[in-house]
Amino acid sequence: MEKGLLIVVSGPAGSGKGTVNARLLESPDYAYSVSATTRAPRPGEQNGKTYWYITREEFERRIAGGEMLEYTEYCGNYYGTPKKEAEAVLASGRNLILEIEVEGAMNVKKLYPEAVLIMLLPPSFAVQEARLRGRGTETEEKIRARLERTREELKYLPFYDYVVVNREGGADDCAEDIRAIVRAECRAIRRHPEAQAEYFAG
Amino acid sequence: MEKGLLIVVSGPAGSGKGTVNARLLESPDYAYSVSATTRAPRPGEQNGKTYWYITREEFERRIAGGEMLEYTEYCGNYYGTPKKEAEAVLASGRNLILEIEVEGAMNVKKLYPEAVLIMLLPPSFAVQEARLRGRGTETEEKIRARLERTREELKYLPFYDYVVVNREGGADDCAEDIRAIVRAECRAIRRHPEAQAEYFAG
Repeated sequence: MEKGLLIVVSGPAGSGKGTVNARLLESPDYAYSVSATTRAPRPGEQNGKTYWYITREEFERRIAGGEMLEYTEYCGNYYGTPKKEAEAVLASGRNLILEIEVEGAMNVKKLYPEAVLIMLLPPSFAVQEARLRGRGTETEEKIRARLERTREELKYLPFYDYVVVNREGGADDCAEDIRAIVRAECRAIRRHPEAQAEYFAG
Repeated sequence: MEKGLLIVVSGPAGSGKGTVNARLLESPDYAYSVSATTRAPRPGEQNGKTYWYITREEFERRIAGGEMLEYTEYCGNYYGTPKKEAEAVLASGRNLILEIEVEGAMNVKKLYPEAVLIMLLPPSFAVQEARLRGRGTETEEKIRARLERTREELKYLPFYDYVVVNREGGADDCAEDIRAIVRAECRAIRRHPEAQAEYFAG
């Protein structure tokens, strides 16, 4: 069976990456991997389903042992993708979607140069700002922090492979863009270094 | 208006490139350009429609003047793509399909590094041979010549961007592959060197 593609989707606040990825995950060709975390499970969450819940010591042991594909620390807890989880999905032939921050994306690209990095963007900074304010759920301070963070995130754009723009109500279009990217990537010549020999071998 | 994409489709005899390209051309997003030739018009053919009919002297003057995007000599006549024709299609926002030989493809890539080169292949050399014999329209000598030619053509495979395989009755799949490639290419980061600046300006 052909291995799946490792797809990283990043995007600033308001890019709608959660919605777009949910659309992709409706198809059995795409999968998430279950992340590991050091935070305590909330009521209803299941070990191995929502997250793998592990101790801080165990998480740090895994980082040191090179067992994490990427990880981040947020509000005092670690969150990350165990390599083993990711590789199980890819070996099953499904495309693995990692919805991660720019720093984690760079780490994935270093470990898996064959990964495809996609940056999802609102149509413009102005639209992003309007979307964040339109939500009406966040303080002015938090909105400003998110917009500032976007300036940092966009500095990584040149290291991504594709940029997909999420226009108003465009989640379906974006999902279709990503499906097209995956279909094209599977036919890229650099993924078929043996194509010529295989052709004549029959 | 955004410029169209220059798409080169090559493929050995029996790859079905004519059928696949005809599928793409059903959509107004794709176009051929009218080639120039030195051969005489046949009954019913129209100047500027089937071909631009020009003299040998005129064709050679255009080659010397760098006015041909690519050309080839076949059975004593020149055939080629006038740059002006190609650029008119691209400026109209449509994707231009050039169905050309490997040598011409290399020339296009040199002149237009942004061109996308796609090699269409039968599933294998054995299947290609069976297809050519199955047609029952060609002499054994001609079939052998085509198969020999294929060995030369495939040497250029590493210089192509994508390889698309035409399985039995797979013209629709191949057209869909090429549409996905075009959609993905339009979102490739290297085609948007100003994306970051535009995002904040926008």
